[in-house]
Amino acid sequence: MGAGGTDGGGSAEDRLIARLFAPLARHPGALGLMDDAAVIAPPPGHDLVLTKDALVAGVHFFPDDPPASIARKALRVNLSDLAAKGADPLGVLLAFAVPPGMDEAALVAFARGLGDDCAAYGAPLLGGDTVRTPGPFTVSITALGTVPAGRMVTRLDAKVGQAIVVTGTIGDAALGLALRLDPGRAGFAGLGAADLAFLKDRYLHPRPRLVLSTALREHASAAMDVSDGLVGDLAKLLAASGVAGRIEAARVPLSAAARAAIAAEPALLETALTGGDDYEILAVMPEDRLDAFGAVATAAGVGVTVLGRTLGGQGLTVEAAGGATMVLKQQSFSHF
Amino acid sequence: MGAGGTDGGGSAEDRLIARLFAPLARHPGALGLMDDAAVIAPPPGHDLVLTKDALVAGVHFFPDDPPASIARKALRVNLSDLAAKGADPLGVLLAFAVPPGMDEAALVAFARGLGDDCAAYGAPLLGGDTVRTPGPFTVSITALGTVPAGRMVTRLDAKVGQAIVVTGTIGDAALGLALRLDPGRAGFAGLGAADLAFLKDRYLHPRPRLVLSTALREHASAAMDVSDGLVGDLAKLLAASGVAGRIEAARVPLSAAARAAIAAEPALLETALTGGDDYEILAVMPEDRLDAFGAVATAAGVGVTVLGRTLGGQGLTVEAAGGATMVLKQQSFSHF
Repeated sequence: MGAGGTDGGGSAEDRLIARLFAPLARHPGALGLMDDAAVIAPPPGHDLVLTKDALVAGVHFFPDDPPASIARKALRVNLSDLAAKGADPLGVLLAFAVPPGMDEAALVAFARGLGDDCAAYGAPLLGGDTVRTPGPFTVSITALGTVPAGRMVTRLDAKVGQAIVVTGTIGDAALGLALRLDPGRAGFAGLGAADLAFLKDRYLHPRPRLVLSTALREHASAAMDVSDGLVGDLAKLLAASGVAGRIEAARVPLSAAARAAIAAEPALLETALTGGDDYEILAVMPEDRLDAFGAVATAAGVGVTVLGRTLGGQGLTVEAAGGATMVLKQQSFSHF
Repeated sequence: MGAGGTDGGGSAEDRLIARLFAPLARHPGALGLMDDAAVIAPPPGHDLVLTKDALVAGVHFFPDDPPASIARKALRVNLSDLAAKGADPLGVLLAFAVPPGMDEAALVAFARGLGDDCAAYGAPLLGGDTVRTPGPFTVSITALGTVPAGRMVTRLDAKVGQAIVVTGTIGDAALGLALRLDPGRAGFAGLGAADLAFLKDRYLHPRPRLVLSTALREHASAAMDVSDGLVGDLAKLLAASGVAGRIEAARVPLSAAARAAIAAEPALLETALTGGDDYEILAVMPEDRLDAFGAVATAAGVGVTVLGRTLGGQGLTVEAAGGATMVLKQQSFSHF
């Protein structure tokens, strides 16, 4: 995979990496990962959309997460960025740093998870680099997407008086993380095995909403994916667009598992609203686009919920049940 | 810088990163690093060339290397791949993982080194991600370049009976590394301060030969940059093209500093030939293109040396002075 040493020339590890990853690089422009670079002809009349996220063991995932899940998460958080920008995937580049203790079985599983998801999401592996590290397993993915020229959905163009919507359900991944960190806390005591597994799965396996890319381009004024928490991310979007907003906490869509956990331990509502790792799409659009956008989402099996509206001025108000303004300790989760 | 938390919303570190890197992202498509993704219109009629290399402290650079030099090296090794493919830079994405002990001054210096080189090489920063790591400082760069459609120079198309050439001088960086690891060894005892500084600088600061991109597209049948050692990399190129080759060790271009070190300690010749980190261009081209290619290189102040020729069959023969075949312990250096 380029100059870093996975091009088959060198050590046994080099050859292992080549054997595992070259089969994933079926795109002709990947040149079987045998060259220094990949080459790809971008579709005429389109802009490129570029995003790059890195994940570190012990920071963004648990060191004992299944390697296939780590690969999937690393890929999916990048594809989620493409989805939020209204982009269709063109391909991905992968760099990862392998710690001393990582064995062949783990690399095989990592490659398989990556390959399955590259195929499932139509995002071919184009190239990358593999290096050793004395530190934790670290994965960096660069995802390339395309939009018709000038049509990328940014955070910048939300207007006053538009609807604020979110896809799917919010808080599942943050609750899944809380569950991993402290399975004994009150909120999780009454949940059944299926609910507990659902929350953990939502943390491990984000669901990039690429099925909504086209509809976002057609209908949304602004959008982003929810990675650092609904409240903090919405505040960023509103600030970038120069508008204010008001949402009702009671409208935030919660899964049955999240509802049960929050009912048992109300403090978990704040975890859900600010915890992050949702990888759902937060979008602002004219009211008269809601039906058309909702129809596409429904057809794809993705829920869409109106949380509130944009207003003149600045700042985000989160209204609690009864109309009081919620005071949140922390608007979003920062990995940094 | 996208979902990883440098978009200004979060912690003091987030804001520091935003303050340091946003000014480097002057390309309008970088959206001031305020969005989840960058957007760029690729030039019509061109292919994209994509490369991604990762560098880890203690593996690819010394933890106490100046942060500005680390940034420069991370950028330049990627730009060197673009140069070898005949590509012109379009932009770069940066991800880096910051260890606990890295202070603000180091981040400031890293950003300055990166910014200076992005400007010098015409490769604007388009986006990326910053994360924390409990491990070593780790940098991953994805470089995007362009070539006229169908014109990327690969490793695959060297033909029998062509000239094997290399730019610049070989072995300086490997000797610089050897000097860093063991300054007391015999080869370095007689070198003056300027020669020692030159070798160290060649290890720290690769010189991507982007000035030769166009000439490589026009004249080379195959090319790659020398990152893992001249002999091993040439063997890879020949194998990828399905040809054999013979070069003379005595023709390998050496700097005055390298010549002095090797004269004092002949074993260092093998270090020079196989050590890597040269980031010079190894190319195979028809004999009748040598003059035209050499003229462009000379005008740019870059030397070009003919090392030997491609042959039918397979394998690389390195001929020592007197005509004997050199036996090398290891053809290339593997970081992995």
